[in-house]
Amino acid sequence: MSFIATPQTMHFPEVLPLQSGASLRDYHLAFETYGTLNPDASNAVLVCHALNASHHVAGVYEGQDKSEGWWDNMIGPGKPVDTDKFFVIGVNNLGSCFGSTGPMHPHPDTGEVYGADFPVVTVEDWVNAQARLLDRLGITQLAAVLGGSLGGMQALSWTLQYPERVRHAVVVASAPNLTAENIAFNEVARRAIVTDPDFHGGHFYRHGVIPKRGLRIARMIGHITYLSDDVMNEKFGRSLRAPTLPEGAGPARGGPAPDLRDYLYSTQDIEFQIESYLRYQGDKFSEYFDANTYLLITRALDYFDPARGHGGDLTQALARATAKFLLVSFTTDWRFSPRRSREIVKALLDNRRHVSYAEIDAPHGHDAFLLDDARYMSVMRSYFDSIAKEFA
Amino acid sequence: MSFIATPQTMHFPEVLPLQSGASLRDYHLAFETYGTLNPDASNAVLVCHALNASHHVAGVYEGQDKSEGWWDNMIGPGKPVDTDKFFVIGVNNLGSCFGSTGPMHPHPDTGEVYGADFPVVTVEDWVNAQARLLDRLGITQLAAVLGGSLGGMQALSWTLQYPERVRHAVVVASAPNLTAENIAFNEVARRAIVTDPDFHGGHFYRHGVIPKRGLRIARMIGHITYLSDDVMNEKFGRSLRAPTLPEGAGPARGGPAPDLRDYLYSTQDIEFQIESYLRYQGDKFSEYFDANTYLLITRALDYFDPARGHGGDLTQALARATAKFLLVSFTTDWRFSPRRSREIVKALLDNRRHVSYAEIDAPHGHDAFLLDDARYMSVMRSYFDSIAKEFA
Repeated sequence: MSFIATPQTMHFPEVLPLQSGASLRDYHLAFETYGTLNPDASNAVLVCHALNASHHVAGVYEGQDKSEGWWDNMIGPGKPVDTDKFFVIGVNNLGSCFGSTGPMHPHPDTGEVYGADFPVVTVEDWVNAQARLLDRLGITQLAAVLGGSLGGMQALSWTLQYPERVRHAVVVASAPNLTAENIAFNEVARRAIVTDPDFHGGHFYRHGVIPKRGLRIARMIGHITYLSDDVMNEKFGRSLRAPTLPEGAGPARGGPAPDLRDYLYSTQDIEFQIESYLRYQGDKFSEYFDANTYLLITRALDYFDPARGHGGDLTQALARATAKFLLVSFTTDWRFSPRRSREIVKALLDNRRHVSYAEIDAPHGHDAFLLDDARYMSVMRSYFDSIAKEFA
Repeated sequence: MSFIATPQTMHFPEVLPLQSGASLRDYHLAFETYGTLNPDASNAVLVCHALNASHHVAGVYEGQDKSEGWWDNMIGPGKPVDTDKFFVIGVNNLGSCFGSTGPMHPHPDTGEVYGADFPVVTVEDWVNAQARLLDRLGITQLAAVLGGSLGGMQALSWTLQYPERVRHAVVVASAPNLTAENIAFNEVARRAIVTDPDFHGGHFYRHGVIPKRGLRIARMIGHITYLSDDVMNEKFGRSLRAPTLPEGAGPARGGPAPDLRDYLYSTQDIEFQIESYLRYQGDKFSEYFDANTYLLITRALDYFDPARGHGGDLTQALARATAKFLLVSFTTDWRFSPRRSREIVKALLDNRRHVSYAEIDAPHGHDAFLLDDARYMSVMRSYFDSIAKEFA
């Protein structure tokens, strides 16, 4: 049983200029904190989230047993990021659909729901908004900023946008930018959403519908890229879905195993277990995730590219970072492969920065960063233990 | 300039029993032949096609300069499969949309277009239909059966269904079955098509519409899996699409290169060249490919699994093959990786069969089997030269 987490909200009446030239004002950020801030505010750890996550990083909500935060195995009392030592902040990003101001909220000028008019936000914009939240919380400098995947991009960007405010950056299963293939998968997902007739140019709220077809396809594509080929073969392989039993029948006994039954010979019925799994994941996702948020977050991923302003030279781009770094990657992650983490490591070493790097031999693909792997957890624990010693 | 090819059609009034238990009758097969059949019919080569191809394997159509067959670089006079020596047959599979009987043709009983009622066809069914075509052409035994990808599965199946009718099987960029990840990509593509409101349960012809949205998504997903990550990065990388010039403007001169322009900061406009490429491929495909055919062909891929009837033991499954084999795979093919070809090689060697295997170090991913790679072409040429010596 985990500890009780309590979501909070902070209102920001002032204008936040965005990278695109647009701006947001009168926005809210949803956040949670765990642990106690030191008197000198030296033990703060900011956790940045990836695509399908939020400020609810750890703990459970009162009276909701199964509401563990998305990184509850990593963060909490006695866990690798130990909230008996650290004051941990989880913050939901602008444009999300989990609490902070996003496309389903009203524009403060018109009172109309933003929908597709919500401005495009970037990793840099999110970091700027997070910095203002820290200002309000009285935190000048972070002991560490931590994130996986898109969250890792935010952690990296913190060290470039606010070098003096970050002592350590922990960048897990991330990349210095997306490859063409990464962008391609995002684009297919976006096209599936945008061409769903229920999308209505992003103003589907007005029509009382949701582009569920598109969201399902987007999520199914995402899921394939989160898992490794090996883990998919191990979990699902070519196993057929068990045949549906007649109503009232008890559990099948003595009959042929599902894999020995004949094919259904159908193009639309579910034949293989992997199909059943993907359809289920897609359906579930389409019930709670906002279509405009999906577009915004995948675009923030596409756009992140700190080397772009330096003629593509990542070493030059990272020269301004002064934090110490831990980078972690997973061997079977083909979405953000170890090669991409090594690019960051190399650029930091070229700048003679203090870098630790762990390449974890894990079978789970990109999803590994959310799972319990003993070596991974141990690397994280010892790194955060060493940070804790700096302010103990 | 290639030679002139002439498509032909053969009518089969008799019933073809299918693996599913259903059957087809009164069907047509579209085919082409190149070269001349020996008096003893010993020089015939059957070419089996993959997802998006047809009986038009080589040559051009009269008066249509740009109508080269899909394997015109491989097959023709003086080419690796030399039509001065071989009598080559290309045949379009049942269920296709390129000439043979398929979902857009009328059911012989009712006169109604099949649509979604076209029976599910398997690799084994296609091979049976091809065998009947060869009967009509007076060909008892093939010098070789040849195919890439799904075509390679047909070539492999020939050696199991009609071992005595095949002297050589050439299986390129193929696999003994699909992995869970392969099935997953097929399933997402099918869901995109089936959930397109214009699909109308597969009877869209009656409604005068085409499920183009779904076909576009299906093709975009396919394209990503045909290319290697490396070749995508090389061809497209993170390059931005050149800005659209005002109408009447000449070619841009002296302005900033497209990659130096600012982002558009849009979730729906085309920002990156890879997006432009994928949308173009998707649009083009949706103009000519039939949605029901897409479902049928991806399902035939999913179902192929010769080891299934042998408790998953591929060695046992291939024991009945007596042909000599050439297998070819490409290092960067992540759709049908070299590992999958090696499974076939191993199972054949376990059975002490005659096998040659070439693993070509090519950057182009799965698409490599259609491209001109000097080492690949040279392997094919020398293998077919050696076959030709057997009947010369």
